[in-house]
Amino acid sequence: MTAEHETLGDAHEQAAREQRVTDEVVASFEGAGDARLQHLMQALTRHLHAFAREVRLTTPEWEAAIGFLTRAGHITDDRRQEFILLSDVLGLSMLTVGMNAPASASATESTVFGPFFLENSPEIPRGGDMGEGVKGMPCHVRGRVTGVDGAPIAGARVEVWGADEDGFYDVQYVGDVVQARAHLFTDANGEYDFWTVQPAAYPIPHDGPVGDLLAATNRSVMRPAHIHFMVEAEGFETLITHIFVAGDEWLGDDAVFGVKQSLILDFERHEPGEAPGRRVDEPWSSTTFDIVLAPTGA
Amino acid sequence: MTAEHETLGDAHEQAAREQRVTDEVVASFEGAGDARLQHLMQALTRHLHAFAREVRLTTPEWEAAIGFLTRAGHITDDRRQEFILLSDVLGLSMLTVGMNAPASASATESTVFGPFFLENSPEIPRGGDMGEGVKGMPCHVRGRVTGVDGAPIAGARVEVWGADEDGFYDVQYVGDVVQARAHLFTDANGEYDFWTVQPAAYPIPHDGPVGDLLAATNRSVMRPAHIHFMVEAEGFETLITHIFVAGDEWLGDDAVFGVKQSLILDFERHEPGEAPGRRVDEPWSSTTFDIVLAPTGA
Repeated sequence: MTAEHETLGDAHEQAAREQRVTDEVVASFEGAGDARLQHLMQALTRHLHAFAREVRLTTPEWEAAIGFLTRAGHITDDRRQEFILLSDVLGLSMLTVGMNAPASASATESTVFGPFFLENSPEIPRGGDMGEGVKGMPCHVRGRVTGVDGAPIAGARVEVWGADEDGFYDVQYVGDVVQARAHLFTDANGEYDFWTVQPAAYPIPHDGPVGDLLAATNRSVMRPAHIHFMVEAEGFETLITHIFVAGDEWLGDDAVFGVKQSLILDFERHEPGEAPGRRVDEPWSSTTFDIVLAPTGA
Repeated sequence: MTAEHETLGDAHEQAAREQRVTDEVVASFEGAGDARLQHLMQALTRHLHAFAREVRLTTPEWEAAIGFLTRAGHITDDRRQEFILLSDVLGLSMLTVGMNAPASASATESTVFGPFFLENSPEIPRGGDMGEGVKGMPCHVRGRVTGVDGAPIAGARVEVWGADEDGFYDVQYVGDVVQARAHLFTDANGEYDFWTVQPAAYPIPHDGPVGDLLAATNRSVMRPAHIHFMVEAEGFETLITHIFVAGDEWLGDDAVFGVKQSLILDFERHEPGEAPGRRVDEPWSSTTFDIVLAPTGA
């Protein structure tokens, strides 16, 4: 056997050995009682191994990955979720939300859920104010919820949450304060409106391993200003999305890839004076967000 | 537009939206200063997204994955490494070790490193006993370390560690006890021998999320009996491997996929009496493990 033959033979044997490992692990999940779990674990194994083989993962790199996950686990607690953040900055969150709210030619687009949602937000009436006590310029949001056929959807649940002008959500403050979050229902014409505060751009939490990853790869930690929406109505797919503020400097560089062109709205600035349902003694802003829901199972 | 056309159009638009997310995340790593880190993160993104898209990952499944990683992080401490265990049961450890100790037609095969290695093991002389005070049947191991050309390698460092007859390593006991681990050097003929205890099959730690995963997929938590080896010599690739005991019931079902046929050895059982370098007053066993190292950079 020549040296060249031996090298080719070794390369072939090496590839065969690597494939055998993958095959063995995939086979180990054959006995899972749950067919879906089996499918998930087998696919995860194949893709994970394909990644490691493509990059020829080294032992120090494998060790670095173990260390990264360990640090992420240790920084995660009731108020901090580093694994969601990791999913967000790798675009997995955006991809998952997008797959589970399938595109419809005419329905409103979805975006990431984020780590700042809370169950049991207070209900407010039409025109109510969820911005009371929150730092920021008053902002009025109105719109209409319809199906793709344009028919208004009455009684749709519109859940809204946002940050204050410093970029902080209520859950990031000490104590149990609940603010800048609420839900309300559309009227017979599918219309809703509420007051909150003008959203501001902010950095994602970046003092942990995810922040280190973004720094090491020269990526921005900023999110453009936005307000979160979750809209539910019987017979329609639940919509999880944001509205973004036209002109925000981070629209083209969102750390979590949440921006969609169709979700960027003009926020008009107004001088103090008469405003929808109230008189405002300071500058305020307003925007209109019409929402189109896709029918269930479309 | 017919309904069928609309459905096809939507499917096309959906696929395009999903691809755009992947493209955006891959592009976000373009500015990484370190070319290797950029390559790793871009490949990780592509494979992670390909997995999610192939299985059509649902929101509850994504949430379960976040919860799994969170639990793994919280159970991991100085004595417990759940992420290494996860890597082990997904075969990633075995794959990584195999890629970093490339196959050579005639070199000894590698296997997983495992979580039980400790730096600074005691040195023992030829024929020394690393099994003193360890529960188990005395076991004598001997062999010769050579290159692929059969030439003996003198002064090779042979590092060995193993569990006691209850399947526990020293690090799993309370306190700083060091036992059933040592290193020694081959003599001028490349030969080594030492005493330890007969290894026993044992379960990997399975009271955490990895154990739950194995239970949910009906996988065994057992590892067949084995002794760990790490063999280093200048001019040769470091070998990380095990020897397994022929006849062990778990050889075909190792929780971490570490078994290679070539690493299964006969352990001969002997009655009390004369043994290599000593007289033994109880039954004892012996095996021979000849080791072939691949040249560096082969």
